Amino acid sequence: MNIHDLVRELREPSASKIVLLVADGLGGLPLEPGGKTELETAATPHFDDAARDGITGLSVPVLPGITPGSGPGHLGLFGYDPLEYRIGRGILEALGINFAVGAKDVAIRGNFCTLGADGKITDRRAGRPTNEKNRAAVERLRTIKVPGVELFVEPVKEHRFVLVIRGDGLGDAVNDTDPQAVGVPPLRAEGRDAAGAKTAAVVNQFVAEATRVLAPEAPVNGATLRGFATYPKIAKFEEVYGLKSAAIAVYPMYKGLARLVGMDILDPGTSLQGQVDTLKQVWNDYDFFFLHYKYTDSTGEDGNFPAKVQMIEKLDEVVPQIRALKPDVFIVTGDHSTPSRMKSHSWHPVPTLLVSDVCRPDEVTEFSERACLRGGLGQFQAMHLMLLAMANAGRLGKYGA
Amino acid sequence: MNIHDLVRELREPSASKIVLLVADGLGGLPLEPGGKTELETAATPHFDDAARDGITGLSVPVLPGITPGSGPGHLGLFGYDPLEYRIGRGILEALGINFAVGAKDVAIRGNFCTLGADGKITDRRAGRPTNEKNRAAVERLRTIKVPGVELFVEPVKEHRFVLVIRGDGLGDAVNDTDPQAVGVPPLRAEGRDAAGAKTAAVVNQFVAEATRVLAPEAPVNGATLRGFATYPKIAKFEEVYGLKSAAIAVYPMYKGLARLVGMDILDPGTSLQGQVDTLKQVWNDYDFFFLHYKYTDSTGEDGNFPAKVQMIEKLDEVVPQIRALKPDVFIVTGDHSTPSRMKSHSWHPVPTLLVSDVCRPDEVTEFSERACLRGGLGQFQAMHLMLLAMANAGRLGKYGA
Repeated sequence: MNIHDLVRELREPSASKIVLLVADGLGGLPLEPGGKTELETAATPHFDDAARDGITGLSVPVLPGITPGSGPGHLGLFGYDPLEYRIGRGILEALGINFAVGAKDVAIRGNFCTLGADGKITDRRAGRPTNEKNRAAVERLRTIKVPGVELFVEPVKEHRFVLVIRGDGLGDAVNDTDPQAVGVPPLRAEGRDAAGAKTAAVVNQFVAEATRVLAPEAPVNGATLRGFATYPKIAKFEEVYGLKSAAIAVYPMYKGLARLVGMDILDPGTSLQGQVDTLKQVWNDYDFFFLHYKYTDSTGEDGNFPAKVQMIEKLDEVVPQIRALKPDVFIVTGDHSTPSRMKSHSWHPVPTLLVSDVCRPDEVTEFSERACLRGGLGQFQAMHLMLLAMANAGRLGKYGA
Repeated sequence: MNIHDLVRELREPSASKIVLLVADGLGGLPLEPGGKTELETAATPHFDDAARDGITGLSVPVLPGITPGSGPGHLGLFGYDPLEYRIGRGILEALGINFAVGAKDVAIRGNFCTLGADGKITDRRAGRPTNEKNRAAVERLRTIKVPGVELFVEPVKEHRFVLVIRGDGLGDAVNDTDPQAVGVPPLRAEGRDAAGAKTAAVVNQFVAEATRVLAPEAPVNGATLRGFATYPKIAKFEEVYGLKSAAIAVYPMYKGLARLVGMDILDPGTSLQGQVDTLKQVWNDYDFFFLHYKYTDSTGEDGNFPAKVQMIEKLDEVVPQIRALKPDVFIVTGDHSTPSRMKSHSWHPVPTLLVSDVCRPDEVTEFSERACLRGGLGQFQAMHLMLLAMANAGRLGKYGA
């Protein structure tokens, strides 16, 4: 039986509240044999209290050995099988800038580049233009028309923009036109099926026209496209779990992921305290709160071990404010590990804690990779975390008589 | 999504090398309450070093409580779902005598029996003939021709032989002709579908003819057949994992299992040191090395606890030679447990260790059933081990954006 159908069948109304605090890329590795991870190094008295009060374990984002991107990482935590639901890069980018992508859209990540007189790429990021320069170039791209489809061009920042093509019968089976190299021209788009071919034809017209209209903006005088993606068919979080849900995230990508499953997207500003203040303000309006904290991932990606330690400690400091709201279920986890040593996402399981009035506590009294190995949640698939959240929130009835 | 498709999509080229050392039937049981297992009793300083350097856990070969044969046990370790891919007894028998079975073959386990004048079985094993007598009888069976198919008869030992029928449109949905009783005649073969019926027709002709040609060999004057099996459709290991692979095994069955998934089968002679020497010789020629060690299983099957301890210690001694080659990923596991106390394969999870530069070490410093329970790999499905091997070898890219 499909898990979502099971939840739809078993779920029960409740006034309980669930907080899911996602420390992006939380898990780590020691720098040296015998050393400690970032989380083990950080002083985290409040996480440790929560680990003592609750139950701990390690979340496997997708499968053992599989390193997820942000999309699959979050879908798992939201209770969607990340191998069943796939979200393309273009859709993620569009969601991240608050563009309301729809069922007839193909969304594409665009990069401004610099082309030489011979049409070859000399700078794949067009010298990282200012956001103003980006907007000026986007305005020029907006003058382009291709018959039979609607085109939307939206600025992201620096060299990045989003192109959305809206029309009937479009597909996303199209190669990236970004050759990922300089000294060569952008690639021509080719469709791998009929729907993809239709998209590719539009794209090739758009790109040719882009080169013409961007000429006055040199060095921002070319565009490459990648991550062609149609809108995924995905059940809404509230329809499945019966939870009125709010996403309290700073970064567009995570707002976009939450919007994709139908959460309300709040605007907490850019600070962690702003996020916590927003949580307090809307506490009575929602059942489920997704708080996203980016800096544990970005410092890991930078390979900056001490900075990641510091970002973990900074997050720990706000935990008392969250727990003071007395959520029925308080969860801390990550969408994947990002060990500073690897400067990248990784497959390593993610330390997780869950506090509720009815969780069965284990003997773990600190929040760390090593301690969580002895935790009562064991190692579990991320996509099952929402079942535990629902159960602990008193929102799942008995299965079978 | 199918795991093999996922691997095909995510895998990345690398020069990294993976060693999978399979100690057949590794896991055990204490002889008495409060006692130690074979592995816990054995002095294994080198396994313990590897456990300290790496990550440990317990492999569940198929599912909790399911005892695998050698086929499913190894398929799991090679990254194939042992519940999806099934290898019939006849195919295993053929692989075990190094017969190169192919796609048009039905392989069948044969037993010589003794028939009375009334055609009823008086001895199901024909008095356990010598291997010489077996070969003489096999020579007689080789004179049998059945139109439309090729027949291959191969000796195994004592009363056992293998029959392979090669032809178009043959199936394996055929009942065993061995009635598993004396005082009754062999059963007639019947097909349960059209392809099975075609095989059954060949078999019934073969058996009738066998009775005629074997008459001079009495008491080896009859044959029963069982374990009808066609060649399984199975993706090749290299095609899935992108690993050029070598099997360094002594016993035919394990060479056969490795050949089934397309590994190169090397000839290391019959000693463990010969296997290690072979590994050194071909180190630069392959990405993946499957080393199979039989004696932890055979001593367990014999119910010889001290001998199994000794065989574990003997294997431990060669570990430094293997690790000196500096494999990027070094794995020690078993295809199943074979507790001496049970004198048989069992379902108990199998101690497993993995050493790589990017594994997340746990607190386990010895290699044993009990210690591995605290390991960072947790208890995992054997079929996921290859995902971990690939990730730790830097051979799997990120899933999703």
